[in-house]
Amino acid sequence: MADSKTLGGAGLRGQVAGRTALCTVGKTGAGLTYRGYDIRELAAGADFEEVAHLLLYGELPTQAQLDAYRQRLAALRDLPQPLKEGLERIPASAHPMDVMRTGASLLGTLEPEHSFADQQQVADRLLGAFPAILLYWHHFSQSGTRIDCSSDAPDIASHFLTLLHGKAPSDLHARVMNVSLILYAEHEFNASTFTARVCASTLSDLYSCVTGAIGSLRGPLHGGANEAAMALIERFASPEEAVTGLKQMLERKEKVMGFGHAIYRDSDPRNEVIKDYARQLAAEVGDRVLFPVSEAIDRTMKEEKGLFPNADFYHASAYHFLGIPTPLFTPIFVCSRTAGWCAHVFEQRADNRIIRPSADYIGVEQRAFTPIANR
Amino acid sequence: MADSKTLGGAGLRGQVAGRTALCTVGKTGAGLTYRGYDIRELAAGADFEEVAHLLLYGELPTQAQLDAYRQRLAALRDLPQPLKEGLERIPASAHPMDVMRTGASLLGTLEPEHSFADQQQVADRLLGAFPAILLYWHHFSQSGTRIDCSSDAPDIASHFLTLLHGKAPSDLHARVMNVSLILYAEHEFNASTFTARVCASTLSDLYSCVTGAIGSLRGPLHGGANEAAMALIERFASPEEAVTGLKQMLERKEKVMGFGHAIYRDSDPRNEVIKDYARQLAAEVGDRVLFPVSEAIDRTMKEEKGLFPNADFYHASAYHFLGIPTPLFTPIFVCSRTAGWCAHVFEQRADNRIIRPSADYIGVEQRAFTPIANR
Repeated sequence: MADSKTLGGAGLRGQVAGRTALCTVGKTGAGLTYRGYDIRELAAGADFEEVAHLLLYGELPTQAQLDAYRQRLAALRDLPQPLKEGLERIPASAHPMDVMRTGASLLGTLEPEHSFADQQQVADRLLGAFPAILLYWHHFSQSGTRIDCSSDAPDIASHFLTLLHGKAPSDLHARVMNVSLILYAEHEFNASTFTARVCASTLSDLYSCVTGAIGSLRGPLHGGANEAAMALIERFASPEEAVTGLKQMLERKEKVMGFGHAIYRDSDPRNEVIKDYARQLAAEVGDRVLFPVSEAIDRTMKEEKGLFPNADFYHASAYHFLGIPTPLFTPIFVCSRTAGWCAHVFEQRADNRIIRPSADYIGVEQRAFTPIANR
Repeated sequence: MADSKTLGGAGLRGQVAGRTALCTVGKTGAGLTYRGYDIRELAAGADFEEVAHLLLYGELPTQAQLDAYRQRLAALRDLPQPLKEGLERIPASAHPMDVMRTGASLLGTLEPEHSFADQQQVADRLLGAFPAILLYWHHFSQSGTRIDCSSDAPDIASHFLTLLHGKAPSDLHARVMNVSLILYAEHEFNASTFTARVCASTLSDLYSCVTGAIGSLRGPLHGGANEAAMALIERFASPEEAVTGLKQMLERKEKVMGFGHAIYRDSDPRNEVIKDYARQLAAEVGDRVLFPVSEAIDRTMKEEKGLFPNADFYHASAYHFLGIPTPLFTPIFVCSRTAGWCAHVFEQRADNRIIRPSADYIGVEQRAFTPIANR
């Protein structure tokens, strides 16, 4: 890893690979903006559908536009029967991100994007259908139950929690889920979004772009940090134990997930937002372990390594308090980031050149072929 | 398109995005080499399994190694029952590349790559299984027939043609298929391979990388040129008609697929190889239209535009003479390029940094959030 950093172009860090009007990350004065709006203001004042509309249609919706958009998305929640039957073939042991990837790909065979004129429709379809793709499989593989994939929940956040728990969420739980979906919706040229843009640059279809992006988000260096943070937090029974245990981990040079960031230097603007909600949820359930342990880890990482928690760290306890099983954390990221991925595909299509970089050749010199009889 | 070329970094053309020991493209003295071997020598003297072994295991195999490798791949041809049942849910109207993408993804839920120690096994599994993924779906969706996915064919080329036609191919047909698989196996940092490497850079699993690569190869600017070439050739009933028709197309500035290349300047080294076999196949069946029309188009493109045929152009007639339906052309590319994709993933994993470029921001300035009641 250290060695590869000496290579010009390793990881393309700092190299411009295209243009975007969607997002700024780490610019002075505003940690993260979506189309010019500070993420903290969006998280405080909007619902996820407003943010998805902003990213996919260019502006925040009026109330009438939002009502129409919610209605359209709600009509796109249920899954075609062959997709349900396909999901039933995926075992309970499967990685839920593999289920999302396969579900997106299979939906693309059943309801293809016939032309780029369909792109908004396909993006909305994926946003509408992803909660059911995950949770139809989840319930069927866990208990054999074929759930109703539609619900009368007013938005995607509530719909997700309704399908998961079989009942409507409280106002606080629906709000936290909305905020989480907003925080994860877009983040410039991260690896999964860049995957979607490379795919889009061949003029492939939107399902291919999103399917590829899910595959990249699945990697432990990208999505999945909140799952790893949860595993860490759950190891400790008290803040004192956490401090001792974490210091031992750091002495052994073990990797601690959920801290630091490739782009942000001093803090992740999404952290303060989700941390505040994690605290509220902890108070609601009378938690005296998980949140104090999280804070102890946070403090110790600051003192020992000078590192700050990123968006993922307090998402772990927040999701846990919402009753979400840990393996389903990263698929929620998919339900959210689909808005950003699709908006980036639209941008790539509107000003396209196929993304085809070069490589430094480090292999053997040209050599003569030896027929197999002489090898 | 012209506009985007003025942007620094558009399409990352000429920018180094990593290192490879697998391939050189367009270097002086040798148009295309795989691990130092000229593609023309490999096409003349090797079978596809030797080339896959070269790419995935580092060296051309001895006869004993090749025999063992063929046996291993042959044992990986049949599909698990849930995958067959999933493929049965995909309609006949689906894009065959969507079938390949979904089949790879679904196989990944059934036989996951548990650790990178499994990577060779997964690569071999995909090479072994892809012909059946395509052709099980093809026959079931066309006629309801559930074919036997194993065969006693000695190699992947013959296995593919055996599953397609229900009988063993002639020696010439098996040879042409082998040569085609060799020519398409690897091509440095093209868009689909780069997709696989971006995905690999998050340390995601191999199925995700290959699934994403298929999605990118599906795009008309990447794979699919041989299908477009076939559609063009079939329009004309004689060489004379082709010359006239092509000149009219060029006057109307229509795009002619199968000519020129992003990297090669004067010729594509793969063209002469496949053209020679297309000629042999034409002679075998006594063709007096398709091949002469192809040559007339080739000649006219040279005279009128100074452009040379790339690997895809004569592949169209060659595949047609092998009795392969046009929509199955690009999936054959998958059966072949899987060797290159997987070898690139191995390389990326061995010297990894997450691929995360930057973007030029061209959006609106930061602006204050307006609550929905005030919009």
